[in-house]
Amino acid sequence: MSPYPQDPFAWTGAALEDRRDAGLLRTLRPRPADSPLLDLAGNDYLGLSRHPEVTGAAAEAARRWGAGSGGSRLVTGSTELHAELEAELAAFCGFEAALVFSSGYAANLAAVTALSGHDGLIVSDAGNHASLIDGCRLSRARTAVAAHADPEAVRKELAARTGEGPALAVTDSVFSVDGDAAPLAALAAACRATGAGLLIDDAHGLGVLGDGGRGAPHAAGLAGDRGTVVTVTLSKALGSQGGAVLGPAPVIAHLLNTARTFIFDTGLAPAAVGGALAALRLLRREPERPARVRAVATGLYERLTAAGLEAARPDAAVVSVRAPSPEAAVGWAADCRASGVVAGCFRPPSVPDGISRLRLTARADLTEDQLTKAAGTVIATAPAARP
Amino acid sequence: MSPYPQDPFAWTGAALEDRRDAGLLRTLRPRPADSPLLDLAGNDYLGLSRHPEVTGAAAEAARRWGAGSGGSRLVTGSTELHAELEAELAAFCGFEAALVFSSGYAANLAAVTALSGHDGLIVSDAGNHASLIDGCRLSRARTAVAAHADPEAVRKELAARTGEGPALAVTDSVFSVDGDAAPLAALAAACRATGAGLLIDDAHGLGVLGDGGRGAPHAAGLAGDRGTVVTVTLSKALGSQGGAVLGPAPVIAHLLNTARTFIFDTGLAPAAVGGALAALRLLRREPERPARVRAVATGLYERLTAAGLEAARPDAAVVSVRAPSPEAAVGWAADCRASGVVAGCFRPPSVPDGISRLRLTARADLTEDQLTKAAGTVIATAPAARP
Repeated sequence: MSPYPQDPFAWTGAALEDRRDAGLLRTLRPRPADSPLLDLAGNDYLGLSRHPEVTGAAAEAARRWGAGSGGSRLVTGSTELHAELEAELAAFCGFEAALVFSSGYAANLAAVTALSGHDGLIVSDAGNHASLIDGCRLSRARTAVAAHADPEAVRKELAARTGEGPALAVTDSVFSVDGDAAPLAALAAACRATGAGLLIDDAHGLGVLGDGGRGAPHAAGLAGDRGTVVTVTLSKALGSQGGAVLGPAPVIAHLLNTARTFIFDTGLAPAAVGGALAALRLLRREPERPARVRAVATGLYERLTAAGLEAARPDAAVVSVRAPSPEAAVGWAADCRASGVVAGCFRPPSVPDGISRLRLTARADLTEDQLTKAAGTVIATAPAARP
Repeated sequence: MSPYPQDPFAWTGAALEDRRDAGLLRTLRPRPADSPLLDLAGNDYLGLSRHPEVTGAAAEAARRWGAGSGGSRLVTGSTELHAELEAELAAFCGFEAALVFSSGYAANLAAVTALSGHDGLIVSDAGNHASLIDGCRLSRARTAVAAHADPEAVRKELAARTGEGPALAVTDSVFSVDGDAAPLAALAAACRATGAGLLIDDAHGLGVLGDGGRGAPHAAGLAGDRGTVVTVTLSKALGSQGGAVLGPAPVIAHLLNTARTFIFDTGLAPAAVGGALAALRLLRREPERPARVRAVATGLYERLTAAGLEAARPDAAVVSVRAPSPEAAVGWAADCRASGVVAGCFRPPSVPDGISRLRLTARADLTEDQLTKAAGTVIATAPAARP
C-alpha cells in the first residue's frame, strides 16, 4: 500500500471543517445588478461606480479599445488611454509621474519590492494592508515591524540600520480595518532625518482626504516630495478597478523597468482605465464630494456612539464598530442585512488584533434618510441590545 | 552635515543610467485605438479582444453592474455575473469549481500559497512564470526548483521530501518564453506516485489547446482530476482581463477562505467579467478557432525556419526566435515595427536563460496574406541577414 494520500488535496476539506466549527467559514454571496439593500460595506466612497458618466466612459472604452489590453504594458498593453490616466492622476495628486497597475495589490507589491532591496531595511507599520506585508515578504530587504502609527518607533528603526541598501518606511494613509489615519507628516520627518524613503498606500485617502480629494499625502504637504512615493487604488473612490504608483519620474521609470507585477502582468483593461479617468474628471469638477463622504462618516459615528456602541472616530470614510466575538459580528451583520442594510464583517484573519468588527463605509451619495436608516438598523441589531 | 542622502530615491536614477548603458532600458509605447500595425506581440490568441460580441458584452456589463465591483469578493464585490462566469468556466474546462481573480498573477499567488504551507514542499519548474515564482517565495513551504520539463526530476524531489506538510508540483502548461508545452501527463503520474498535488498554470493553453480550446490539462486527461488544480487567465485567449483557479470544490472553498490575493483584493470589474463570459460562449460556439491559431503558429514557424532562422517548434500559439544579443533583439523588433509588424522582444530579466528573443504570437484571425507579410518582415529584418 502506498504511504501517500490518494487525494493530495483532501486536507483542504478538513481545513474547511475546522473553519466551520470555529465559526470562521466564509462563503460568497453574489449580488444582483439591482439590489434593494442599502450598501454600507463597499468602498465606492464617492458613489461613482454606478454614475452614468463613469459607466458610460467604461463602456465606450471597451468598445473603442477592446475588452482587454491585449498584453503586458511593455509589449502591447499600453494604450494612449493608459497614458492619459497616468498623466491626469499624477497631476491631480501633485506628483511628477504615475504608473497604472491591474490592481492596488499589484501596485503595492511592485512599489515595496522595487524600492527596497538587498542589504536594505523596510520599516512597516503593524497595521499595514496585506498587500504591503506581502511586498515586504517578497523583498530582499530585512523588514522591521514598527508599532502602529508610531513615528518615533519608525525613526529609531531607521536610524539603527546597519546595511548599505535603501531604507524605506511603509504605511497605509488610512488603515482599512479601523479607518484611522497615519501621522504622515511626522513619518515624513522621521524619514527625512534618517535619509529614508517613505511609501504611502493612499487606497482609502484618494478622493476622500486632502484638497478636493487629492489624498492624504497632499493634505500632509507631501505632494511632489522627492522622498515620498504613493500608491492609490482606482477601485474605491474612483469606482473602477486597478491601482497606481505616483512619485518622482525616475522612481516610476525604475518601477516599469524592474517591478515584476508590472512587467509580467497584463495591462489594465481599457474599460477600467476609461472608468477611472471619467471618475477623476468628475471629482475635479465636483470637489464637494469628498467633504460629503467625510460628513456622512462622522454622522454615522456620532449616531452610533450616542447609542452606546464602541466605534473609532473616523479619519476618512471607514467607521469601525467593535463586536464582542466573531460569531456576534456575523450575527450582527446578518441581522442588518435582514433589515435591508449591508455591513462589512471583519473577522480573523482579516483583523490584525483578533477583534471582530462591523465595518461600515460612508458614501457621498447617501441621503440623510438613508444615513438615519443605516444608523438605526445597526443600533437596533447590536448584540449588546439583545436579551 | 547629515550622513544620509537628501534624496532617498536618487539611486533609482543611477540604476536607470546603468540600465541605459547596458542597452536594457525599457520605455512604454502607448498605442492608438486604431493602429495600422500588424500585431504579433499580444496574447489575444483568438482575436476576441476586439470582437463586437465581446466588447459589446463588456460595455453592457459596465452599464448594468457598474464600472467597478465595489469591494472585495467576500464583501460586496461578488455579482451574479462573477458566479455565472465561474460556473461556465469550470464546466467548460471540466472542473468542479472555479474562482475568479483580478489577474492571472493574483490567481497564481493565491493557488501556490494556499495549496502549500508550513513543513511542506513545492517543486517548481525552472522555466515557470514570475507569478508562480513569487507564489513560491510567499509560501511558507520549502521550494525546490526542478530542471525544465523533467518529470523524473520532479518525482525524485517529491519522493525525497521529509516534512509532514503538503507537497505540490507547480508548472506552466505552455512556457511563455519559448512556447513549449510541459509534459503534463508524466508530471501528473509523478505526483500520483508520490501523493503530491499538481498545480498547472494554463495561461497560454486555454482557448488554444485541448478539445475545442478546453486547455492543456483537458488535453492531458486531467480535467476533473482530484489531484490537479489549474489556473487560467481571462486576458489572453478570452481577450479580457483577470484570472481564475479551477479545481475540486473543497480546494476552491479553501482558496476563498485563505488566499490573501482573493480576500484583500477588489473583485474583478464587471466589464472584464462580462467580456470574458462572452468570449467563452463564442469559443464554445466556434470550436474551430483554437485549431486555426495553432495552424497560424505552425505556418509562421515553418516559414521562419525554412529561411534559416532559429526558432522553437511551437506547441501552442507562441513562436520564439533567437536573437544574437539584447541589442540585436531590440534592433530587430524596431526594424519589424518600421515595416509594420509588431513583435515582442524578450530580454533579461524576462528570460530565464539570458538569451534574448523575438517573440511572435499567432492569432486565429490572421489571414494568409497577413501571415505571409509577418513572416516575410521578420525574415527580411533578421540580424543574421545584415552585412
